[in-house]
Amino acid sequence: MTKYTIGLDYGSDSVRSLIVNTENGKELASVVFEYPRWKDGKYCNALNNQFRQHPKDYLEGLEYTIVEALKQCPEGVAENVVGISVDTTGSTPVAVDEKGTPLALTPGFEENPNAMFVLWKDHTAVKEAVQINELAKKWDVDFTKFEGGIYSSEWFWAKLLHVIREDAGVYRAAYSWVEHCDWISAVLTGDTNPKTLKRSRCAAGHKAMWHEAFGGLPAEEFLVELDPLLSGLKDRLYKETFTCDVAAGKLSAEWAEKLGLSTDVVIGVGAFDAHLGAVGAEIEPYYLSKVMGTSTCDMLIAPMEEVGDKFINGICGQVDGSIIPGMMGLEAGQSAFGDIYAWFKRLLEWPLKNILAESELIDEATKQKLIEETSYKIIAKLSIEAEKIPIAESGIVALDWMNGRRTPDANQALKGAITGLNLGSDAPRIFRALVEATAFGSKAINDRFIAEGVRIDGVIALGGVAKKSKLVMQIIADVLDMPIKVARSEQACALGTAMAAAVASGVYSNIAEAQKNMGSGIEMEYHPIPENVEKYKMLYEDYKNLGSFIENQV
Amino acid sequence: MTKYTIGLDYGSDSVRSLIVNTENGKELASVVFEYPRWKDGKYCNALNNQFRQHPKDYLEGLEYTIVEALKQCPEGVAENVVGISVDTTGSTPVAVDEKGTPLALTPGFEENPNAMFVLWKDHTAVKEAVQINELAKKWDVDFTKFEGGIYSSEWFWAKLLHVIREDAGVYRAAYSWVEHCDWISAVLTGDTNPKTLKRSRCAAGHKAMWHEAFGGLPAEEFLVELDPLLSGLKDRLYKETFTCDVAAGKLSAEWAEKLGLSTDVVIGVGAFDAHLGAVGAEIEPYYLSKVMGTSTCDMLIAPMEEVGDKFINGICGQVDGSIIPGMMGLEAGQSAFGDIYAWFKRLLEWPLKNILAESELIDEATKQKLIEETSYKIIAKLSIEAEKIPIAESGIVALDWMNGRRTPDANQALKGAITGLNLGSDAPRIFRALVEATAFGSKAINDRFIAEGVRIDGVIALGGVAKKSKLVMQIIADVLDMPIKVARSEQACALGTAMAAAVASGVYSNIAEAQKNMGSGIEMEYHPIPENVEKYKMLYEDYKNLGSFIENQV
Repeated sequence: MTKYTIGLDYGSDSVRSLIVNTENGKELASVVFEYPRWKDGKYCNALNNQFRQHPKDYLEGLEYTIVEALKQCPEGVAENVVGISVDTTGSTPVAVDEKGTPLALTPGFEENPNAMFVLWKDHTAVKEAVQINELAKKWDVDFTKFEGGIYSSEWFWAKLLHVIREDAGVYRAAYSWVEHCDWISAVLTGDTNPKTLKRSRCAAGHKAMWHEAFGGLPAEEFLVELDPLLSGLKDRLYKETFTCDVAAGKLSAEWAEKLGLSTDVVIGVGAFDAHLGAVGAEIEPYYLSKVMGTSTCDMLIAPMEEVGDKFINGICGQVDGSIIPGMMGLEAGQSAFGDIYAWFKRLLEWPLKNILAESELIDEATKQKLIEETSYKIIAKLSIEAEKIPIAESGIVALDWMNGRRTPDANQALKGAITGLNLGSDAPRIFRALVEATAFGSKAINDRFIAEGVRIDGVIALGGVAKKSKLVMQIIADVLDMPIKVARSEQACALGTAMAAAVASGVYSNIAEAQKNMGSGIEMEYHPIPENVEKYKMLYEDYKNLGSFIENQV
Repeated sequence: MTKYTIGLDYGSDSVRSLIVNTENGKELASVVFEYPRWKDGKYCNALNNQFRQHPKDYLEGLEYTIVEALKQCPEGVAENVVGISVDTTGSTPVAVDEKGTPLALTPGFEENPNAMFVLWKDHTAVKEAVQINELAKKWDVDFTKFEGGIYSSEWFWAKLLHVIREDAGVYRAAYSWVEHCDWISAVLTGDTNPKTLKRSRCAAGHKAMWHEAFGGLPAEEFLVELDPLLSGLKDRLYKETFTCDVAAGKLSAEWAEKLGLSTDVVIGVGAFDAHLGAVGAEIEPYYLSKVMGTSTCDMLIAPMEEVGDKFINGICGQVDGSIIPGMMGLEAGQSAFGDIYAWFKRLLEWPLKNILAESELIDEATKQKLIEETSYKIIAKLSIEAEKIPIAESGIVALDWMNGRRTPDANQALKGAITGLNLGSDAPRIFRALVEATAFGSKAINDRFIAEGVRIDGVIALGGVAKKSKLVMQIIADVLDMPIKVARSEQACALGTAMAAAVASGVYSNIAEAQKNMGSGIEMEYHPIPENVEKYKMLYEDYKNLGSFIENQV
């Protein structure tokens, strides 16, 4: 009998389920659910970089996407689903009670953003990250050393410390903290006990300073020194972590019924989206797998023995098995990527949404259609116009730190900039400069890997931007001076997650075997244009100078 | 009998005539004419900073505005008009033939931008300005020393040199060159002979390196060394210059008939708009008269004996009688002011004009109305929202050099910048930062005057922005930490020009007397808010740091 697995992929704005034939990787059905509360802008404050998500958005999406996707499948598929695995954004932790229930699902906390998941791009914990870094540098063991040597405000400890300092109610009610990817897997097994649920190696190793060499999480003394509020929490977290090829348990009766699946379905241990995306894109050693969406997550794998004792400074960590079990997983990334294009789009939409929206010249329905139609076309039209602009012609140089800088050298206090403006600097010219800035940000990451002794042989791109924007992809190939392969799968993260489920449920004995059978290969390749490469070398120097200035100012 | 004078005020986008009762300054009629070719964007290329204006735009406006304004006046006024004076933007020179006719009005040059007036804000001559400065520093006499020590690409010699280098046809056909303010006065007198028409002290002294100490314009050897193309031109220009209280001649029969006025009407010598604006705003010694429109022109007068032998570095010149005859006129200014707000508006309009404009959801006429309505409201709505944003809250710091920097220290190669951007930086926040940047640019000018030993006792504001934007004016008062008086006259430039006409035609014996009788005083005063002053001190440091960085990059 043919076996099927489900990859559940929780992104920043929506969750997707993908049902895959494990024999050949054929994608049978895929359903997306946009988080409704998130879409309404609830619990967020972009100006303060506060981004929170309600657990109900996740649970509703879990049920909806699997049930609907199964409806699209031919008869006989549901009965032969053998595994479900989960990938999510991260670090996206939540405070939970003794049963492992997120506080926002418990009475009195329903509308409290501090009782919800703190989304990866939430940067409210800048101060806490600074403090963690200061203490880490003074401590006899540097607990940040496997995470690039700089702890980020996007990560587990900074976020939880910020929340419990700010919200005494949450502090008192929080028994433990759980990452999004761990909680969804646990929910599906029916056992969310925070002391026993299986924690992801990927999340723990890259974001929570967990390492075997430390015997697990950082020392209790370190945590208490950071803040006495953390006292005792470590015992209510975890010691052990697991790679994505391990089973977390089996589908609970409750969820089996809800989803129309059997209780024999194996639930795999979760991992982060970018890591399982790299799996889905068939990552090879020394190929940078770049998930390009709202931000980028740049994944690299290398044989354990080749990385050896090197600490790769300024990246987001080096974790045994975080991507492919048995290989060293190295993570880097840009805090904002597509988000920068979206920001510029929002800026240009301002008159539409704030002035035209109040016009009395046309009826409400037509007005809404007109605004939607116009908004929808902005990025595409900007791209067409930007493509016509010769490199360096506009003189505009931008910096892609509108959401801080993740790597190299995490610093969330940094900001974006646009220089070289004159009265003729129009929207397509600024847009092009923003695209170039995101490409320069990519180049800075490549440069760092190479400077730290990790070679890069090529790039495999995946994610929305990689698929959709030829402009962006060609500019990145030119700036990196490196060919870029684009993974064929529309849903590399979900596909990688379905591959992990196929291993966790025993269809395959390891990830490599699952990739070989289920992978969909490369769709196209961008090659650097030598003439452009030369021009961008000069602009990249301007970008670096601008970056140094901004960094010195902060 | 009551006598009347007409002030003709040529701005960047339109010309205005104002008919004034010389007894009490009462404004009887005012008519504006927008330059039609300019409005269509003809002869310009904003990306290359090329801004040219066709002489027909000026001539059509001359006739239309005076004829229409006279129609609005009671009977008996036309017969008692005794003087007309002219102010224009500058330096706005044009190549003319032997009769003083701008080449664009001669066969073969009708559509050639190089045969038209080169508007003040045209920055195509950056290279030529650099060359003039280099040569001036090597020469035994520094011909730039009365013009702040740095020659600008906005000025006479740089512009004409650029045009004749670029366009051999214009070079061959150009007998001489004339400033806009001199040409209009000459046209009205019917004698445009470039060798005899009366040249403005204001234009010559501030923009053409004319000074009594040099015996007039710079030495022939200097000009030929600059470029052999300039050989002989000096003899076809001028030696003498005249202040605005002097008569250029009387109205020609041709124009008397066109306008319905007598040939006894005296035509005054022209001057620049900002200088006569300062007259109209009743400038006092050591008060900075700030004309705030697309750019700013900042005028200061001081008794000749008090300035003495000092050279005020980095401003646009110190000229005996350029504002008030008998007083030293000091000029400074910002290359872009309202133009920066207009640039941001154009940026935000992009989706309206490039996407919505192509929608098929509504009919063409409604669409145009909707676009116009929305565009029209952008600045007002931005201002309302920007006012609510606390100082320094957004973290955005901008630089106001989108059209280069006029003063202090002219440098047209400089560009604008916006820093401190994050994903929450919305249009009102960026707009506020742009307004603050223009205020910081004003502060840099004040600082320079003071550093060079010229005190500033207060500011008198005039021009469109001063009248219209409370947001801008309060921010400037806070940043300058100085009260700002706003001149009551809606048309201070045209009023000052009418005052000059009243002196040139003998109604009054000097400008002070005309001001006393015809002035309309102060409308309101902005006072700095101490709390804001302190906050802006810190932001101003950020502005200066950003400026230093950008300046070092160029």
